[in-house]
Formats: sequence, structure tokens, C-alpha cells
Amino acid sequence: MPVWFMRQAGRALPEYRQARGEGRFLDAIADPALCAEITLQPVRRYGVDAAVLFSDIVVPLAAIGFGVEIVPGTGPVVESPFRRAADLSRLRGLEAEADIPYVIETVRLLVRELEVPLIGFAGAPYTLASYLIEGGPSRDYALTKSLMHADPDLWMALMDRLADISLAFLAAQVGAGASAVQLFDSWAGGLSAADYERFVMPASRKVLSGLAGAGVPRIHFGVGNGELLGLMGEAGADVVGVDWRVPLAEARRRIGPGRAVQGNLDPALCLAPWDVVAGATRRVLADAGGQPGHVFNLGHGVLPATDPDILTRVVDLVHAEGRAGGAP
Amino acid sequence: MPVWFMRQAGRALPEYRQARGEGRFLDAIADPALCAEITLQPVRRYGVDAAVLFSDIVVPLAAIGFGVEIVPGTGPVVESPFRRAADLSRLRGLEAEADIPYVIETVRLLVRELEVPLIGFAGAPYTLASYLIEGGPSRDYALTKSLMHADPDLWMALMDRLADISLAFLAAQVGAGASAVQLFDSWAGGLSAADYERFVMPASRKVLSGLAGAGVPRIHFGVGNGELLGLMGEAGADVVGVDWRVPLAEARRRIGPGRAVQGNLDPALCLAPWDVVAGATRRVLADAGGQPGHVFNLGHGVLPATDPDILTRVVDLVHAEGRAGGAP
Repeated sequence: MPVWFMRQAGRALPEYRQARGEGRFLDAIADPALCAEITLQPVRRYGVDAAVLFSDIVVPLAAIGFGVEIVPGTGPVVESPFRRAADLSRLRGLEAEADIPYVIETVRLLVRELEVPLIGFAGAPYTLASYLIEGGPSRDYALTKSLMHADPDLWMALMDRLADISLAFLAAQVGAGASAVQLFDSWAGGLSAADYERFVMPASRKVLSGLAGAGVPRIHFGVGNGELLGLMGEAGADVVGVDWRVPLAEARRRIGPGRAVQGNLDPALCLAPWDVVAGATRRVLADAGGQPGHVFNLGHGVLPATDPDILTRVVDLVHAEGRAGGAP
Repeated sequence: MPVWFMRQAGRALPEYRQARGEGRFLDAIADPALCAEITLQPVRRYGVDAAVLFSDIVVPLAAIGFGVEIVPGTGPVVESPFRRAADLSRLRGLEAEADIPYVIETVRLLVRELEVPLIGFAGAPYTLASYLIEGGPSRDYALTKSLMHADPDLWMALMDRLADISLAFLAAQVGAGASAVQLFDSWAGGLSAADYERFVMPASRKVLSGLAGAGVPRIHFGVGNGELLGLMGEAGADVVGVDWRVPLAEARRRIGPGRAVQGNLDPALCLAPWDVVAGATRRVLADAGGQPGHVFNLGHGVLPATDPDILTRVVDLVHAEGRAGGAP
């Protein structure tokens, strides 16, 4: 049974905080040796079955000069949010070799070093759009939904441009050697299925189908998106990420055959005593049905307050139970 | 077809901002004449079929001296959060006549004045606990879930005490003349169904069943709680509030027979042009199936940026379509 953790690189690890120091997040991203080290740390410590690139979904937007900063404790903050058609000109295409050479170099360094697969990732067009329009994290996505419904043509143009950027970002990571990709549509769960299908799915499909010939598994993930699981699979995913709200057996029913599931231990549960975490881990494994086509993960990213030793024990338990259960 | 809006009192209304001025929110709550006026404003303006008390779920916690402030733009902030068993002593029972005479007086004033039913409300134990433990709004409820899993006995004691407070708060409103009550478990949707059933549902059931003999409809509401709809009905609701993520026909399937549904227009859609809002309103009505047992509402509270005229048009449309469709 393979296991990795979203946000395993960084956050909870003391060796990460030591390596990172106090500098800007985006400066760290631009330092391939540092990024590679941070990406490797959780593989060494936890014994996970995959590395996930230390990066952020707004990296390509910052790289083309949209004006995005990652503010500690807040998240991405956009200096001058996207508001009107004229802002489309601020979203030129991503030329990976020129715009993000440091990401490509990080991936190359890692592929030489790693004995497990490297997972690359990008933000999906909707989630990127929500940051660009709201100017930062949001509770209600009111401005995003307003633009979507008040000016559908501009919305679709924005989504199409972001799809091109996401695809170029992922293709660059795959080209440099990443073995799998995850498309994060973290905030799509705030949409009704009808709005998702009409206003979001075409752009996400463009990204995922653009990688269809690349020979790498495509993971598609969101939070609070129980009503969208089927559509997010149909958008072109090989693996659908599931948060902790939907048991994996029910998630499989909604997603249908032919796709794997990833998840779905509640990251907040990892702050509980070990016997609680162990019980919850076993329930995730039981829900997945011991079947093939399950990648064990959290239902969202590792919380900063997590004790790293708990995550090591989760990995050990998943490996032990996976062997016992005869999973892949 | 009856229609009202969560947070219809306050927020979007210019006459509210004029009446309220710049004072503390909790001072306004303690002024029955002002509260009654603010509660009446949306009934006059929108022509909704019910008034909902202008209040806040933390009012009873502030009234027993826990130390809660409502900070504009943030929400409830707790001076000294709940962390350990000793904090239970800070949560004495609510003695409504002594602790919240102003709420009782507001309800009495309103019942004399109103020609439509008055809906009272309270926070459910889980959502109240999340504020007490986190100290304010949270993204991940990590501290809340930590306490729940690390010290289940303390957790259950806290929930039981909050259930008593919620019940006393609702019973006081009903005793003064409120015709219906809504129990807001706004943040329960962050829990898995297993955790909800074990750690939350008993306390919510205590509140709702405590009102079983009161002869008033009990509405039970949460956000992002699609996986919990059945359980939230079973906790003792006559009406289950549904957010915009789950179509009402599917919500009815999950909730089962014998309970009405309330909802579920996306409040962010109300910022769109009228033709979009009208289309979405008609879809909600169609999804509800023109059946009896549907109370039209938003899927969460009115957003402050909403144009009040849009809400008036929604009410008119629901009334017109409701008559056309032969709904109750």
C-alpha cells in the first residue's frame, strides 16, 4: 500500500525550519539545492513511498510577474487582484525554461537523488483564479463567483489562460523527470456541481488531458468536494483525491470504476494520541476495502502542529497492514 | 412557498447600518428596541414570510461571562479560550431571565409587532465549542478536534454543558413567543460522519429533543455538511437546512421522509446579475420538486455586499412561482 502526505515537505519538520531559515518563501523556491533538500527530508524521515516537490501553486503566477507574495500564516496574497478584461494581459503564457528554470533544476536534482517517485503538482485553474480575484484566501469566494456569473466570457477566458499555465507548469516538471502529477483544485468544493461542470471542468480537463500522453498518473484533488468527486474523475484523473468527509467506499461509488482513490485521514486527527491515529488509519484502510487502487494519504495537507513521529508511525502502520492485507 | 434568509437582519441593509451606528455588536444586542427594529427591517423591505431574531450564537456565552467579543470583519473572539477541565467552571448554566433579559424583551416586543412568525436561534454545541476552543474562527479546527480525540471525557462534558446553554437560550426565546427555532451547527461539516455521530450528535439531540414538546418547528442547519444530512435530521430536526452544494432532491434522499428541507440558493450567486439569480432561484424550486415541505432560503447567510433589491426580487419570484406551482 503506497503512502505519502500532502505538504509532507516543510511545515511540521524541525529540519525544514532549520534549512529554510527566515527568508521569503519564493526565494527558497528559487534555490534548487535548498528545495531539493526540503523535498528529500520527509522521504528520509517518514519512509514515504513518494516525494512531493517543495513548491507552491502560485509559483508560476509569480514567475510571469502577476505580483503574488506568499505571506507566512496567511498564504498567497496578490498585490493587484484580477478584476477586468484588461487584467488578462497580465497573464501571459508560462515559458518554463525561461520563467522557472529553478523548478526544472530542482526536479532534475531530485530525480538523480531519489529512490522513490517524485510527484509534481500545480494549482487547478479555479483555485488559482480564486486567489487572483479575491487577492488572497477567502471564506466565501464571493468575488470569484461574482465574476464567473456576471461575465462568463471573461471568466472562461481567464480559466483557459490559467489552464495553459497549469499545463505548462506540470509539463515542465514531467519533462524534467517527475513520475506523477497532482492537480490541486483545493477550493472547488465551494461550488455547486452545476457551476463546477459549466465553469470549471472544461479548464481542468484541458490541463489533465494535455498530460494524457505523458505516461504519468494524474491525481486530481479538492477539499469539501464530496458532490464533485465523479466530475473531478471525469475531468481526466487517474486517481481522485478524497478528503476525510467522504468514506473511501462511498467515494469509490461516486467516482465509479477505472480510477484509483487517494486519501483520506483527517489531518487534524494526527494531533491526537497515537491510539486514536492508529484506529483512524485502520478505518481508512478498511474503508478502502484492501483493494488495489488506493494510495494512502491525508485528506488535506499536514498541519504545522503535527508531531512528525506520528506521521512516521502512520507510514509504518500502513506498510504493515498493507502487507498483511495483500494490497498492491 | 415560504421564504426567509439567514442573516436577513443586518449586514446588507443600509437602514441597518444607519440604525446600528458604530457601537459594539453586543451592546446592540442588549438594546431591545434597537434589536426589534433591526429584526423588523428585512420583513418590511423584502416581504419575507418570517422574521429571524437579530442576535448572535455567542450571546449566551458572553452573557454568562465567558469573555467573548464580536469583532467586526472577524467574528467571535474569545479572550481566554477553553483548554482544560478547569475551564468547565467558566461555563455555568444560563439563567435566561437574569442573564439575557434583553433577548426575552426583544422577542416580546417583536411578537406584539409582527404579522409573520418569529424564528429564534442558537448555536449548536459543536459550533460553540469550536469558538471557545480555537478562540475565534478557524480554518481547520485543529485544536477542537485535538481536544475531542485526546480527552473524550472532557469533550463530552463540554458538549453537555453547551447543550444545556443552547437549550436554555432557545427555550427562553420560545417562552417569550418565538414560533420556530433554528439550531446553527455551522461548522459541523468539517467533521467526518463517524466523529459527528459519536462526539456531536448526542449533544445536539439533547437540545432538539428538549424542545420536542414546545410545539415549534426545529430547523437544524450546517454548511458543507452533505455527508451529515441524514444524521442532522435524526438528531431531532423537523426541517434540515441544506447548503448549495447538495441539490435539494438529493438532500431529500439523504434525509429521508418525514422532514422538510430548507435552502439552498448560493448566497454568493446573489451578487450576480438578476437573470442569473432568477435562473438559480428557479433551479432551487425545481430541485425541491414543487413539493410541500420546502422552505426557501439561502444555503448560508446573506453576504454583506448583496444588493437588497436582488433579495426583494428573489422573494417576489419565489412567491409567484410557489403560487403557480401549487406549493403549500
